[in-house]
Amino acid sequence: MKIIGEKINGTRKLVGKAIAERDAAYIQNLAIKQVEGGAHWLDINAGTPPAREADDLVWLINLAQEAADVPLCLDSANPQALRTAMKEVKQTPMINSISGEPSRLEGVLPIVAEFGCPVIALCMDDKGIPNTADERLDVIRKVFTETRAAGIPDENMYVDPLVMTIGTNTEAGKIIFGTMRLIRSEFPQAHISCGLSNISFGLPVRALINRTFLVLAIEAGMDTAIIDPNDRELQAAIYTTELLLGKDRHCLNYTRAYRANKLEDKKTRFN
Amino acid sequence: MKIIGEKINGTRKLVGKAIAERDAAYIQNLAIKQVEGGAHWLDINAGTPPAREADDLVWLINLAQEAADVPLCLDSANPQALRTAMKEVKQTPMINSISGEPSRLEGVLPIVAEFGCPVIALCMDDKGIPNTADERLDVIRKVFTETRAAGIPDENMYVDPLVMTIGTNTEAGKIIFGTMRLIRSEFPQAHISCGLSNISFGLPVRALINRTFLVLAIEAGMDTAIIDPNDRELQAAIYTTELLLGKDRHCLNYTRAYRANKLEDKKTRFN
Repeated sequence: MKIIGEKINGTRKLVGKAIAERDAAYIQNLAIKQVEGGAHWLDINAGTPPAREADDLVWLINLAQEAADVPLCLDSANPQALRTAMKEVKQTPMINSISGEPSRLEGVLPIVAEFGCPVIALCMDDKGIPNTADERLDVIRKVFTETRAAGIPDENMYVDPLVMTIGTNTEAGKIIFGTMRLIRSEFPQAHISCGLSNISFGLPVRALINRTFLVLAIEAGMDTAIIDPNDRELQAAIYTTELLLGKDRHCLNYTRAYRANKLEDKKTRFN
Repeated sequence: MKIIGEKINGTRKLVGKAIAERDAAYIQNLAIKQVEGGAHWLDINAGTPPAREADDLVWLINLAQEAADVPLCLDSANPQALRTAMKEVKQTPMINSISGEPSRLEGVLPIVAEFGCPVIALCMDDKGIPNTADERLDVIRKVFTETRAAGIPDENMYVDPLVMTIGTNTEAGKIIFGTMRLIRSEFPQAHISCGLSNISFGLPVRALINRTFLVLAIEAGMDTAIIDPNDRELQAAIYTTELLLGKDRHCLNYTRAYRANKLEDKKTRFN
């Protein structure tokens, strides 16, 4: 499992405030802590209006790169801001995201192709997010037709099936796990990624739902997640699921995580 | 998910002591607590030598029936003791267990057939427990040939794929989930049951492994588990997994469990 650290996101209240006030220490602390927690990429979302987005992105990128040595995940649908950002990055970033929407394909896909970026591809188009796994596969098939034509290798694709809320549709889990299995089967070289927290929106004990969803999603083929890398229960769920699915030779990662005190927490006692 | 309460088992030290000392209150408390925790059956295992087993079973059965109104699961391979026990039960009990071993088929199967009992069928024979999912299916196929010939309906069968220890074989999880999928596909009317705790033997933070295993096993088709019904984290994992797999209409069981304070525990905080 690879982790995209989700915390540097200007739509989160305290991060938005830090961006507005140019609080560099706050942002750099988020970058350092997420890498310490095991982030393989740092998502960078300015969350600001288009006119300010390029400036804010550049400021965030430079801070994150000063503080941490992992590639970034540029979270923007604004081609202008992305092109400006590409001049600042030290390592090839992931782009978050394209989809079947013509505006994204026209605006963002050329940047992905030109710079050889890994890219998150959302299972939606200009008609919205389809209601069934088969229809989501149809949408993403069309996206692959475009990305392959643009020379983007399937292994650079991180397909996001788009998690909906189980509180409003109890089929939401089945749709996601079904979509993941179809993608894993039809595009075996591609990665599968998603954010978790939508699944539990409006329900109590969200952390329990989120980490149980994570276990089931890994089983269904997810290999990358946009999460808080400092969430110890999510990390413990990842180590344990990989152990149980036979992806942890000699139980080495699990026992190392235990010795590093990552599986137990006095505050959130597991045993 | 149905739960077989595992606690009245004489091989557990304190239960063995209570049986030896005829401590009725201790046993009845275990029965009451497990039913309060949600047990659908109470496993009754005397854990004593054959000569004493029938007497001890009868004593346990009468105590459990006085204290609780759920059917029992008679956990014995001793036909003599089982026949004596059958005279005492008020409701048709489950029998734990038969297997491909000729001695079990000859000794226990006739009792299962005569009394119309649900029965746990282990994926092993006189050569032991096979190493692969395909071989375990082969063994259980032969058991089904015998049970069908004896007139036992498939829906009375509770197949136990036999969980091994992941600490000594990192394929142990894959073998179990694979066996469950094969059984679900070939015997769709049958139930799938197992005990969990072997999976984590010898590894740290066993509760974390056991409850993650439970999530993945439910996904693979398990519908019955032999567990401690008073383990809140296992119960929370069951509610949440059924919610996420679309088996909880309108999220009703999940939200009811929340209101009954079954999903959170101050001692083992989930959120």
